[in-house]
Amino acid sequence: MFISFEGIDGSGKSTQARMLAEALRNEGHEVVLTREPGGSPGAEEIRRLVLEGDPDRWSAETEILLFTAARRDHLERVIEPSLAAGKVVICDRFADSTRMYQGLSRGDLRAVVDQLHTLMIGREPDLTVLIDIDPSVGLSRAKGRQGTEERFEDFGVGLQEKMRAGFLSLAKEFASRFRVIDGAREPDAIAADVLGVVQLELKS
Amino acid sequence: MFISFEGIDGSGKSTQARMLAEALRNEGHEVVLTREPGGSPGAEEIRRLVLEGDPDRWSAETEILLFTAARRDHLERVIEPSLAAGKVVICDRFADSTRMYQGLSRGDLRAVVDQLHTLMIGREPDLTVLIDIDPSVGLSRAKGRQGTEERFEDFGVGLQEKMRAGFLSLAKEFASRFRVIDGAREPDAIAADVLGVVQLELKS
Repeated sequence: MFISFEGIDGSGKSTQARMLAEALRNEGHEVVLTREPGGSPGAEEIRRLVLEGDPDRWSAETEILLFTAARRDHLERVIEPSLAAGKVVICDRFADSTRMYQGLSRGDLRAVVDQLHTLMIGREPDLTVLIDIDPSVGLSRAKGRQGTEERFEDFGVGLQEKMRAGFLSLAKEFASRFRVIDGAREPDAIAADVLGVVQLELKS
Repeated sequence: MFISFEGIDGSGKSTQARMLAEALRNEGHEVVLTREPGGSPGAEEIRRLVLEGDPDRWSAETEILLFTAARRDHLERVIEPSLAAGKVVICDRFADSTRMYQGLSRGDLRAVVDQLHTLMIGREPDLTVLIDIDPSVGLSRAKGRQGTEERFEDFGVGLQEKMRAGFLSLAKEFASRFRVIDGAREPDAIAADVLGVVQLELKS
Protein backbone atom coordinates (compact mmCIF):
# COMPACT_ATOMS: atom_id res chain seq x y z
CA MET A 1 0.00 0.00 0.00
CA PHE A 2 1.29 3.39 -1.07
CA ILE A 3 0.22 6.30 1.18
CA SER A 4 1.16 9.95 0.59
CA PHE A 5 0.81 12.89 2.97
CA GLU A 6 0.06 16.34 1.62
CA GLY A 7 -0.56 19.74 3.16
CA ILE A 8 0.79 23.26 3.40
CA ASP A 9 3.99 23.94 5.34
CA GLY A 10 3.47 23.74 9.07
CA SER A 11 0.41 21.52 8.67
CA GLY A 12 2.09 18.79 10.69
CA LYS A 13 2.07 16.27 7.82
CA SER A 14 5.69 15.15 8.38
CA THR A 15 5.00 14.48 12.06
CA GLN A 16 1.85 12.58 11.11
CA ALA A 17 3.73 10.54 8.48
CA ARG A 18 6.24 9.50 11.17
CA MET A 19 3.50 8.70 13.70
CA LEU A 20 1.64 6.57 11.15
CA ALA A 21 4.84 4.68 10.27
CA GLU A 22 5.37 3.90 13.95
CA ALA A 23 1.75 2.84 14.49
CA LEU A 24 1.80 0.51 11.46
CA ARG A 25 5.14 -1.01 12.53
CA ASN A 26 3.62 -1.70 15.95
CA GLU A 27 0.87 -3.58 14.12
CA GLY A 28 3.51 -5.74 12.42
CA HIS A 29 3.68 -4.06 9.00
CA GLU A 30 6.97 -3.50 7.23
CA VAL A 31 7.00 0.24 6.55
CA VAL A 32 9.21 2.44 4.36
CA LEU A 33 8.96 6.12 5.36
CA THR A 34 10.22 8.41 2.62
CA ARG A 35 9.80 11.94 1.28
CA GLU A 36 9.77 14.10 -1.83
CA PRO A 37 11.44 15.84 -3.42
CA GLY A 38 14.18 13.30 -2.74
CA GLY A 39 13.83 9.90 -1.13
CA SER A 40 16.60 8.12 -3.07
CA PRO A 41 20.29 9.10 -3.32
CA GLY A 42 19.94 10.43 -6.89
CA ALA A 43 16.67 12.23 -6.16
CA GLU A 44 18.21 13.86 -3.08
CA GLU A 45 20.98 15.25 -5.33
CA ILE A 46 18.35 16.67 -7.68
CA ARG A 47 16.50 18.08 -4.65
CA ARG A 48 19.62 20.00 -3.65
CA LEU A 49 20.01 21.28 -7.20
CA VAL A 50 16.44 22.64 -7.14
CA LEU A 51 15.99 23.85 -3.57
CA GLU A 52 19.41 25.32 -2.81
CA GLY A 53 20.76 28.51 -4.32
CA ASP A 54 18.89 31.40 -5.93
CA PRO A 55 15.12 30.60 -6.12
CA ASP A 56 15.03 32.15 -9.62
CA ARG A 57 17.84 30.05 -11.03
CA TRP A 58 15.35 27.68 -12.73
CA SER A 59 12.21 28.52 -14.66
CA ALA A 60 8.98 26.83 -13.57
CA GLU A 61 9.23 24.48 -16.59
CA THR A 62 12.82 23.40 -15.82
CA GLU A 63 11.88 22.93 -12.18
CA ILE A 64 8.98 20.64 -13.13
CA LEU A 65 11.35 18.57 -15.29
CA LEU A 66 13.86 18.28 -12.43
CA PHE A 67 11.15 17.30 -9.92
CA THR A 68 9.83 14.71 -12.38
CA ALA A 69 13.37 13.31 -12.86
CA ALA A 70 13.73 13.07 -9.06
CA ARG A 71 10.31 11.40 -8.76
CA ARG A 72 11.14 8.87 -11.48
CA ASP A 73 14.36 7.92 -9.69
CA HIS A 74 12.59 7.69 -6.31
CA LEU A 75 9.81 5.58 -7.81
CA GLU A 76 12.22 3.14 -9.52
CA ARG A 77 14.72 2.79 -6.71
CA VAL A 78 12.59 2.98 -3.56
CA ILE A 79 8.80 3.04 -3.99
CA GLU A 80 8.20 0.30 -6.60
CA PRO A 81 10.70 -2.23 -5.12
CA SER A 82 9.27 -1.68 -1.60
CA LEU A 83 5.69 -2.16 -2.78
CA ALA A 84 6.74 -5.26 -4.73
CA ALA A 85 8.24 -6.64 -1.50
CA GLY A 86 4.88 -6.22 0.26
CA LYS A 87 5.89 -3.20 2.35
CA VAL A 88 3.74 -0.18 3.18
CA VAL A 89 5.27 2.96 1.63
CA ILE A 90 4.52 6.27 3.37
CA CYS A 91 5.68 9.30 1.38
CA ASP A 92 5.82 12.87 2.74
CA ARG A 93 4.61 14.71 -0.39
CA PHE A 94 4.22 13.14 -3.85
CA ALA A 95 2.91 14.26 -7.25
CA ASP A 96 0.01 16.26 -5.75
CA SER A 97 2.56 18.74 -4.35
CA THR A 98 3.90 19.34 -7.88
CA ARG A 99 0.35 19.69 -9.23
CA MET A 100 -0.40 22.21 -6.53
CA TYR A 101 2.79 24.27 -6.17
CA GLN A 102 3.91 24.36 -9.81
CA GLY A 103 0.36 24.38 -11.12
CA LEU A 104 -0.41 27.33 -8.87
CA SER A 105 2.70 29.29 -9.87
CA ARG A 106 1.27 29.80 -13.37
CA GLY A 107 -2.19 28.86 -14.56
CA ASP A 108 -1.07 27.12 -17.74
CA LEU A 109 1.40 24.82 -16.00
CA ARG A 110 -1.02 22.35 -14.46
CA ALA A 111 -1.59 20.77 -17.89
CA VAL A 112 2.19 20.41 -18.39
CA VAL A 113 2.56 18.81 -14.94
CA ASP A 114 -0.22 16.34 -15.76
CA GLN A 115 1.16 15.42 -19.18
CA LEU A 116 4.66 14.86 -17.75
CA HIS A 117 3.18 12.76 -14.95
CA THR A 118 1.24 10.57 -17.37
CA LEU A 119 4.28 10.14 -19.62
CA MET A 120 7.03 9.53 -17.04
CA ILE A 121 5.44 8.54 -13.70
CA GLY A 122 1.98 7.09 -14.30
CA ARG A 123 1.42 6.10 -10.69
CA GLU A 124 -0.78 7.58 -7.95
CA PRO A 125 -0.81 6.70 -4.24
CA ASP A 126 -3.50 4.27 -3.08
CA LEU A 127 -4.36 6.76 -0.34
CA THR A 128 -3.51 10.44 0.10
CA VAL A 129 -3.89 11.99 3.55
CA LEU A 130 -4.38 15.76 3.36
CA ILE A 131 -3.66 17.41 6.72
CA ASP A 132 -5.77 20.54 6.43
CA ILE A 133 -4.97 23.56 8.57
CA ASP A 134 -5.57 27.30 8.74
CA PRO A 135 -2.52 28.95 7.11
CA SER A 136 -1.97 31.39 9.98
CA VAL A 137 -1.52 28.40 12.31
CA GLY A 138 0.63 26.52 9.78
CA LEU A 139 2.90 29.45 9.07
CA SER A 140 3.67 30.16 12.72
CA ARG A 141 4.48 26.46 13.21
CA ALA A 142 6.74 26.40 10.12
CA LYS A 143 8.61 29.52 11.20
CA GLY A 144 9.32 27.94 14.55
CA ARG A 145 11.40 25.26 12.82
CA GLN A 146 14.99 25.55 11.62
CA GLY A 147 15.18 24.85 7.90
CA THR A 148 17.86 25.74 5.35
CA GLU A 149 16.13 24.71 2.16
CA GLU A 150 12.48 25.15 2.96
CA ARG A 151 12.09 27.95 0.50
CA PHE A 152 8.44 27.12 -0.08
CA GLU A 153 7.82 28.48 3.38
CA ASP A 154 9.17 31.82 2.29
CA PHE A 155 5.70 33.03 1.40
CA GLY A 156 3.09 35.04 3.23
CA VAL A 157 -0.29 33.95 4.58
CA GLY A 158 -2.05 35.11 1.39
CA LEU A 159 -0.22 32.60 -0.76
CA GLN A 160 -0.64 29.89 1.89
CA GLU A 161 -4.41 30.51 1.74
CA LYS A 162 -4.27 29.84 -2.00
CA MET A 163 -2.27 26.68 -1.39
CA ARG A 164 -4.73 25.41 1.17
CA ALA A 165 -7.54 26.01 -1.33
CA GLY A 166 -5.44 24.30 -4.02
CA PHE A 167 -4.98 21.16 -1.94
CA LEU A 168 -8.69 21.06 -1.01
CA SER A 169 -9.53 21.37 -4.67
CA LEU A 170 -7.19 18.44 -5.51
CA ALA A 171 -8.93 16.46 -2.76
CA LYS A 172 -12.21 16.96 -4.63
CA GLU A 173 -10.64 16.17 -8.01
CA PHE A 174 -9.17 12.89 -6.73
CA ALA A 175 -11.88 12.18 -4.15
CA SER A 176 -11.51 8.39 -4.29
CA ARG A 177 -7.99 8.39 -2.85
CA PHE A 178 -7.94 11.64 -0.79
CA ARG A 179 -8.87 11.79 2.90
CA VAL A 180 -9.00 15.27 4.44
CA ILE A 181 -8.04 15.36 8.14
CA ASP A 182 -8.47 18.40 10.41
CA GLY A 183 -4.91 19.37 11.42
CA ALA A 184 -5.84 22.04 14.00
CA ARG A 185 -5.80 19.62 16.95
CA GLU A 186 -3.31 17.81 19.17
CA PRO A 187 -0.98 15.46 17.22
CA ASP A 188 -2.32 12.36 19.01
CA ALA A 189 -5.92 13.15 18.06
CA ILE A 190 -4.92 13.70 14.41
CA ALA A 191 -2.81 10.51 14.41
CA ALA A 192 -5.78 8.49 15.65
CA ASP A 193 -7.92 9.77 12.75
CA VAL A 194 -5.13 9.06 10.23
CA LEU A 195 -4.66 5.51 11.53
CA GLY A 196 -8.42 5.03 11.32
CA VAL A 197 -8.67 5.90 7.62
CA VAL A 198 -5.56 3.83 6.80
CA GLN A 199 -6.86 0.77 8.64
CA LEU A 200 -10.20 1.07 6.82
CA GLU A 201 -8.27 1.08 3.53
CA LEU A 202 -5.99 -1.81 4.51
CA LYS A 203 -9.06 -3.94 5.27
CA SER A 204 -10.73 -3.18 1.93
CA MET B 1 19.90 31.31 -37.36
CA PHE B 2 20.22 28.24 -35.15
CA ILE B 3 22.74 25.64 -36.36
CA SER B 4 23.48 22.34 -34.60
CA PHE B 5 26.35 19.93 -35.20
CA GLU B 6 25.84 16.21 -34.75
CA GLY B 7 27.99 13.13 -35.23
CA ILE B 8 29.57 10.22 -33.40
CA ASP B 9 32.47 10.80 -31.02
CA GLY B 10 35.68 11.58 -32.83
CA SER B 11 33.81 12.78 -35.93
CA GLY B 12 35.41 16.20 -35.61
CA LYS B 13 32.09 18.01 -35.10
CA SER B 14 33.37 20.13 -32.19
CA THR B 15 36.35 21.30 -34.25
CA GLN B 16 34.03 22.07 -37.14
CA ALA B 17 31.62 23.99 -34.90
CA ARG B 18 34.54 26.17 -33.73
CA MET B 19 35.85 26.68 -37.28
CA LEU B 20 32.38 27.69 -38.50
CA ALA B 21 32.00 30.15 -35.61
CA GLU B 22 35.33 31.75 -36.56
CA ALA B 23 34.47 31.90 -40.27
CA LEU B 24 31.08 33.52 -39.61
CA ARG B 25 32.63 36.03 -37.20
CA ASN B 26 35.12 36.94 -39.92
CA GLU B 27 32.14 37.65 -42.17
CA GLY B 28 30.76 40.05 -39.56
CA HIS B 29 28.14 37.86 -37.88
CA GLU B 30 27.62 37.87 -34.15
CA VAL B 31 28.03 34.22 -33.17
CA VAL B 32 27.27 32.31 -29.97
CA LEU B 33 29.12 28.99 -29.86
CA THR B 34 27.61 26.62 -27.29
CA ARG B 35 27.21 22.92 -26.54
CA GLU B 36 24.94 20.26 -25.07
CA PRO B 37 24.48 18.77 -22.62
CA GLY B 38 25.20 22.04 -20.86
CA GLY B 39 25.63 25.46 -22.41
CA SER B 40 24.18 27.52 -19.52
CA PRO B 41 25.31 27.55 -15.86
CA GLY B 42 22.30 25.51 -14.69
CA ALA B 43 22.51 23.06 -17.59
CA GLU B 44 26.23 22.53 -16.95
CA GLU B 45 25.36 21.55 -13.36
CA ILE B 46 22.82 19.04 -14.67
CA ARG B 47 25.44 17.79 -17.17
CA ARG B 48 27.79 17.02 -14.28
CA LEU B 49 25.00 15.23 -12.42
CA VAL B 50 24.38 12.99 -15.46
CA LEU B 51 27.85 12.40 -16.89
CA GLU B 52 29.96 12.10 -13.74
CA GLY B 53 29.82 9.18 -11.35
CA ASP B 54 28.57 5.63 -11.95
CA PRO B 55 27.07 5.33 -15.48
CA ASP B 56 24.28 3.17 -14.06
CA ARG B 57 23.24 5.62 -11.38
CA TRP B 58 20.31 6.87 -13.53
CA SER B 59 17.82 4.85 -15.56
CA ALA B 60 17.41 5.78 -19.23
CA GLU B 61 14.10 7.50 -18.41
CA THR B 62 15.55 9.63 -15.59
CA GLU B 63 18.50 10.51 -17.83
CA ILE B 64 16.14 11.71 -20.59
CA LEU B 65 14.30 13.89 -18.05
CA LEU B 66 17.58 15.37 -16.81
CA PHE B 67 18.81 16.05 -20.37
CA THR B 68 15.47 17.66 -21.20
CA ALA B 69 15.68 19.85 -18.06
CA ALA B 70 19.21 20.92 -19.11
CA ARG B 71 18.02 21.62 -22.67
CA ARG B 72 15.09 23.70 -21.44
CA ASP B 73 17.42 25.82 -19.30
CA HIS B 74 19.94 26.22 -22.13
CA LEU B 75 17.17 27.16 -24.56
CA GLU B 76 15.63 29.78 -22.23
CA ARG B 77 18.84 31.33 -20.97
CA VAL B 78 21.16 31.18 -24.00
CA ILE B 79 19.67 30.02 -27.30
CA GLU B 80 16.36 31.94 -27.47
CA PRO B 81 17.76 35.28 -26.17
CA SER B 82 20.72 35.07 -28.60
CA LEU B 83 18.45 34.33 -31.57
CA ALA B 84 16.12 37.15 -30.51
CA ALA B 85 19.15 39.50 -30.53
CA GLY B 86 19.89 38.52 -34.13
CA LYS B 87 22.91 36.35 -33.38
CA VAL B 88 23.86 33.08 -35.05
CA VAL B 89 23.75 30.24 -32.52
CA ILE B 90 26.03 27.24 -33.18
CA CYS B 91 25.38 24.31 -30.86
CA ASP B 92 27.63 21.25 -30.53
CA ARG B 93 24.89 18.58 -30.19
CA PHE B 94 21.19 19.28 -29.63
CA ALA B 95 17.99 17.23 -29.42
CA ASP B 96 19.06 14.85 -32.22
CA SER B 97 21.77 13.47 -29.91
CA THR B 98 19.11 12.59 -27.33
CA ARG B 99 16.90 11.04 -30.05
CA MET B 100 19.85 8.98 -31.20
CA TYR B 101 21.68 7.96 -28.01
CA GLN B 102 18.71 7.49 -25.69
CA GLY B 103 16.45 6.24 -28.49
CA LEU B 104 19.10 3.68 -29.41
CA SER B 105 19.62 2.50 -25.84
CA ARG B 106 16.14 0.93 -25.81
CA GLY B 107 13.78 0.64 -28.72
CA ASP B 108 10.71 2.00 -26.95
CA LEU B 109 12.42 5.17 -25.71
CA ARG B 110 12.45 7.14 -28.96
CA ALA B 111 8.71 7.81 -28.56
CA VAL B 112 9.26 9.07 -25.00
CA VAL B 113 12.09 11.34 -26.18
CA ASP B 114 9.86 12.77 -28.92
CA GLN B 115 6.88 13.36 -26.62
CA LEU B 116 9.06 15.10 -24.03
CA HIS B 117 10.63 17.21 -26.77
CA THR B 118 7.24 18.29 -28.12
CA LEU B 119 5.95 19.09 -24.63
CA MET B 120 8.95 20.89 -23.12
CA ILE B 121 11.29 22.04 -25.95
CA GLY B 122 9.31 22.36 -29.18
CA ARG B 123 12.19 23.86 -31.14
CA GLU B 124 14.44 22.39 -33.84
CA PRO B 125 17.59 23.93 -35.32
CA ASP B 126 17.19 25.72 -38.66
CA LEU B 127 20.12 23.68 -39.94
CA THR B 128 21.78 20.53 -38.61
CA VAL B 129 25.25 19.63 -39.88
CA LEU B 130 25.97 15.91 -39.55
CA ILE B 131 29.70 15.18 -39.75
CA ASP B 132 29.66 11.61 -41.01
CA ILE B 133 32.67 9.39 -40.44
CA ASP B 134 33.65 5.73 -40.36
CA PRO B 135 33.52 4.67 -36.68
CA SER B 136 36.97 3.07 -36.70
CA VAL B 137 38.43 6.46 -37.68
CA GLY B 138 36.24 8.33 -35.20
CA LEU B 139 37.04 6.04 -32.29
CA SER B 140 40.81 6.27 -32.74
CA ARG B 141 40.49 10.08 -32.85
CA ALA B 142 38.32 10.15 -29.73
CA LYS B 143 40.70 7.90 -27.80
CA GLY B 144 43.58 10.23 -28.63
CA ARG B 145 41.87 12.98 -26.61
CA GLN B 146 41.90 13.40 -22.84
CA GLY B 147 38.37 13.44 -21.51
CA THR B 148 37.10 12.85 -17.99
CA GLU B 149 33.37 12.75 -18.62
CA GLU B 150 33.12 11.49 -22.17
CA ARG B 151 31.47 8.29 -21.13
CA PHE B 152 29.63 8.02 -24.44
CA GLU B 153 33.02 7.22 -25.95
CA ASP B 154 33.31 4.23 -23.70
CA PHE B 155 31.78 1.99 -26.33
CA GLY B 156 33.25 -0.28 -28.97
CA VAL B 157 33.22 0.07 -32.75
CA GLY B 158 30.09 -2.11 -33.04
CA LEU B 159 27.98 0.35 -31.09
CA GLN B 160 29.55 3.30 -32.92
CA GLU B 161 28.47 1.66 -36.21
CA LYS B 162 24.91 1.60 -34.88
CA MET B 163 25.20 5.24 -33.86
CA ARG B 164 26.47 6.29 -37.27
CA ALA B 165 23.52 4.49 -38.84
CA GLY B 166 21.22 6.12 -36.29
CA PHE B 167 22.40 9.62 -37.21
CA LEU B 168 22.12 8.89 -40.94
CA SER B 169 18.60 7.66 -40.38
CA LEU B 170 17.73 10.89 -38.49
CA ALA B 171 19.20 12.84 -41.44
CA LYS B 172 16.65 11.12 -43.69
CA GLU B 173 13.81 11.63 -41.21
CA PHE B 174 14.52 15.37 -40.93
CA ALA B 175 15.89 15.81 -44.45
CA SER B 176 14.84 19.45 -44.78
CA ARG B 177 17.20 20.69 -42.07
CA PHE B 178 19.98 18.03 -42.12
CA ARG B 179 23.13 18.35 -44.25
CA VAL B 180 25.47 15.34 -44.25
CA ILE B 181 29.15 16.21 -44.65
CA ASP B 182 31.92 13.66 -45.27
CA GLY B 183 34.17 13.90 -42.20
CA ALA B 184 36.99 11.63 -43.44
CA ARG B 185 39.04 14.50 -44.86
CA GLU B 186 41.32 17.30 -43.71
CA PRO B 187 39.59 19.76 -41.35
CA ASP B 188 40.00 22.68 -43.80
CA ALA B 189 38.26 20.79 -46.61
CA ILE B 190 35.38 19.84 -44.32
CA ALA B 191 35.13 23.41 -42.99
CA ALA B 192 34.83 24.76 -46.54
CA ASP B 193 31.89 22.41 -47.21
CA VAL B 194 30.23 23.36 -43.92
CA LEU B 195 30.58 27.08 -44.61
CA GLY B 196 29.15 26.48 -48.08
CA VAL B 197 25.92 24.89 -46.83
CA VAL B 198 25.53 27.51 -44.09
CA GLN B 199 26.00 30.40 -46.52
CA LEU B 200 23.42 28.89 -48.86
CA GLU B 201 20.97 28.74 -45.94
CA LEU B 202 21.77 32.27 -44.74
CA LYS B 203 20.95 33.62 -48.20
CA SER B 204 17.62 31.82 -48.42
